[in-house]
Amino acid sequence: METGHALPQPATKLNLRKIMSSYKAMSEIGEFGLIDRIAALAETTLPAVPELMTGIGDDCAVYCPSAKLLQVATTDMLVDQVHFDLLTTPLRHLGSKAISVNVSDICAMNALPRYALISLAVPSSFSVAMVEELYQGISHAAKEYGLAIAGGDTSSSRSGLVISVSMIGEVAEELLTRRSGAAPGELICLTGSLGGPAAGLKLLTREKEIMLNHIENNESYQRNIMADLKEYREAIQQQLLPIARIDVVRFFHAHTIRPSAMIDISDGLSPDLQHLCRHSNVGALIDEGRIPIKGSTRLIADELQDDALSWALTGGEEYQLLFTIPRAEYPAIAENKAIAVIGETTDVKEGVQLSDIYGMKIDLASIKGFDHFPQ
Amino acid sequence: METGHALPQPATKLNLRKIMSSYKAMSEIGEFGLIDRIAALAETTLPAVPELMTGIGDDCAVYCPSAKLLQVATTDMLVDQVHFDLLTTPLRHLGSKAISVNVSDICAMNALPRYALISLAVPSSFSVAMVEELYQGISHAAKEYGLAIAGGDTSSSRSGLVISVSMIGEVAEELLTRRSGAAPGELICLTGSLGGPAAGLKLLTREKEIMLNHIENNESYQRNIMADLKEYREAIQQQLLPIARIDVVRFFHAHTIRPSAMIDISDGLSPDLQHLCRHSNVGALIDEGRIPIKGSTRLIADELQDDALSWALTGGEEYQLLFTIPRAEYPAIAENKAIAVIGETTDVKEGVQLSDIYGMKIDLASIKGFDHFPQ
Repeated sequence: METGHALPQPATKLNLRKIMSSYKAMSEIGEFGLIDRIAALAETTLPAVPELMTGIGDDCAVYCPSAKLLQVATTDMLVDQVHFDLLTTPLRHLGSKAISVNVSDICAMNALPRYALISLAVPSSFSVAMVEELYQGISHAAKEYGLAIAGGDTSSSRSGLVISVSMIGEVAEELLTRRSGAAPGELICLTGSLGGPAAGLKLLTREKEIMLNHIENNESYQRNIMADLKEYREAIQQQLLPIARIDVVRFFHAHTIRPSAMIDISDGLSPDLQHLCRHSNVGALIDEGRIPIKGSTRLIADELQDDALSWALTGGEEYQLLFTIPRAEYPAIAENKAIAVIGETTDVKEGVQLSDIYGMKIDLASIKGFDHFPQ
Repeated sequence: METGHALPQPATKLNLRKIMSSYKAMSEIGEFGLIDRIAALAETTLPAVPELMTGIGDDCAVYCPSAKLLQVATTDMLVDQVHFDLLTTPLRHLGSKAISVNVSDICAMNALPRYALISLAVPSSFSVAMVEELYQGISHAAKEYGLAIAGGDTSSSRSGLVISVSMIGEVAEELLTRRSGAAPGELICLTGSLGGPAAGLKLLTREKEIMLNHIENNESYQRNIMADLKEYREAIQQQLLPIARIDVVRFFHAHTIRPSAMIDISDGLSPDLQHLCRHSNVGALIDEGRIPIKGSTRLIADELQDDALSWALTGGEEYQLLFTIPRAEYPAIAENKAIAVIGETTDVKEGVQLSDIYGMKIDLASIKGFDHFPQ
């Protein structure tokens, strides 16, 4: 079941005098004052991971690796104007997302996250409260996932905010799942539903344009008019506050299930399925009719005159898990309602294909996902 | 002994036609083409660390932690216009430095580096060759230090280049050295000499101003006029291409030496000595006459009408090791010519002091180092 992290909400009643008197520029507390505040927030994440022997405050974090477990490590960087837009992204949500995207990579190895290192490059225009809000999101998400903020680095930035998170997880060798283990004739499975995060991004972009138009025309602007609609809220939440599928990894561990191959959907179903197939040297045939897309996502696509299927195939930022298992193991996952079977692996010569609702086969290699350096 | 890494040098004879025909914009190879090229360079670092089971190419790196060793982890971010200036910094050197500053943190725990994760945010104005140069410096340094590039993340940047490196090292528990173990009456020791990197930075800043003036006045500019002077070259190299003191950590391990406390000098001798003292709850008295400053650094200071001692105290970016040992253990380190004794720890009530060449005691807390968010 996908449920949002219940992030602590800021007070809604504004007391401007109180806000102004509590305003602190970064220069008022300096770099080491900021590190002290960050360390205090990071400390709240430590009880979950007693193997951490030294956290923030020394040259390195120190921890004792769990006996007989392998370690997995990943890193992801979020850059202002590339991965997020502060006009539409609350800092608390952004901090939580920076953690979730890394947890998702750890989960894609069938591993559980243990330690995170957080590097921030902060524009000096930020107030102390803004950095603390960001870090509250980071530490809140860390606690939800049961991992410790073990260290980090904080510097200024001459341009936008940059958040770099590195994460270390652990997994028993017999549960470790790579992208490369699938064989032809296996089931292709997917957690959750697709398209929501792309719908949320489109709505936020529209909202931003409306706001900027109002500002340009000197008109007053009531923020979040549309956020009152439940369908919108859900899609926007999936974009701003994605939840990594640690619940599914815990289900796998509880039932000693090891998928034959797994990847998380960060680029989009189409490119990520192709990655999995390339690493496993198999083909794939997935069925359009089986790709889980919520009715609310389709409604938003209709309203925006866009296509929910192409959001699902190339929208990215889904952070769902895509995995393969031999048919004989299906009964083990059948009880988990978060998992849908969307197709099967084929011989590598068949390529990676989508069978559309009319039974036509489309080569997914012809559909492009997001490219950081597009042609 | 401090020796520079012999980085492979670019060809000096220019063949413009060849250069232009080999020019590739990032958009010509796309994000995944770039990742393939980076992965090929990272792969050259893998033979040194056979415990790495999966490197770049899956959702996470996978490795088997060494039995009975603790792990240490650190992260450092280098941001354009904050930590470096591409007008005066060759990309190859910058890549090497990004590795060295993290290795230095690992060394400060008396640990040896094993794995690195590299995140890059690259302006799309960069050519493929520029990213490759940066990455050649990264992989070259990784090989020098015997660590594996295990993973990373590459995205575009709307503003400047950002390099974030996270590094994992290992150390036996009986050798692990924190900032916090010093007791009063111990020797304070330092590797190498100080002030060189600050001298190098001042020279590069002067060089840049001369160059910009020439450009403003439409005059021709011969680059690196001053770099022919050996004294300058050494200081500039210490700034652009610092070498972490892994040689000293290997010496400690070979002789089973565990300093009582250790820190690397990234902020400057004065602030970093204060960090060590605060963590250890001791005071310190260091002797100006014993702080190793090269004659060439003093010459540059004279020429620039600056002060070599203040460079040594607050210049930062030294990446030397500052550590304490009980007097009785001095004979064990006496043979290592890279190590100098510069003072001793005192009762915490004495504070952290410098005895100048006239015997006057100066409170180091009154001397400020670099602050990312200055008042």
